[in-house]
Amino acid sequence: MEPLWLEDVIEFARKYDPQPFHMSESTAEGTFFNGLAASGWHTAAITMRLLVTSGIPLADGIIGSGGEIHWPQPTRPGDVLRVESEVMEVIPSRSRPERGMVLMRCETRNQRGELLQRFSPKMVV
Amino acid sequence: MEPLWLEDVIEFARKYDPQPFHMSESTAEGTFFNGLAASGWHTAAITMRLLVTSGIPLADGIIGSGGEIHWPQPTRPGDVLRVESEVMEVIPSRSRPERGMVLMRCETRNQRGELLQRFSPKMVV
Repeated sequence: MEPLWLEDVIEFARKYDPQPFHMSESTAEGTFFNGLAASGWHTAAITMRLLVTSGIPLADGIIGSGGEIHWPQPTRPGDVLRVESEVMEVIPSRSRPERGMVLMRCETRNQRGELLQRFSPKMVV
Repeated sequence: MEPLWLEDVIEFARKYDPQPFHMSESTAEGTFFNGLAASGWHTAAITMRLLVTSGIPLADGIIGSGGEIHWPQPTRPGDVLRVESEVMEVIPSRSRPERGMVLMRCETRNQRGELLQRFSPKMVV
């Protein structure tokens, strides 16, 4: 679990996603998000940290070739994030028997259980 | 265009993706990536900054509900990133005539033209 603080939201936005609705409470007023929202990439980055520090037992580390990502609703300052991940499918490599792909589903939710992000990565194993 | 420096790669990794292949040249040796590679989320975050600062003319800002992301090869320290984006389709909202979705394709390449990331977001407009 990981709380997301206002200063972090603004710091990430300044660096990577400098748009009014991510930058300050006042500039976020009256925007699409109706208030300050974290960048979706910030939600994704925190999700990754939670996955890495949760100790998923993949021998070579958590290496994603990509996947489908969705942000059904914005992450807000003060939200406490947690991730649930599930292995959906294991696909052995045809050419390299020691390799394979794992399809996962990682859901990031806040303290109210609201779904903030769904990511379905293909992991290299 | 945006060069990615070694210190930035390590700083991002420390914060969001602390795995050996993202943390230092020495810990990255002999890993899957055969040397230091930036976190895919770092590539994604820099791509976002390039999109925002390129001045894509969307009235409400660049608001993605999600999409398909792929990292065909890792971003390396010293790579100079650029993004090419293309509108693939515009889908008007049935219920709200002033709203719609735009399907885009954003390709992030390095100075050698190698594809580092393909992201196909659905943007809210």
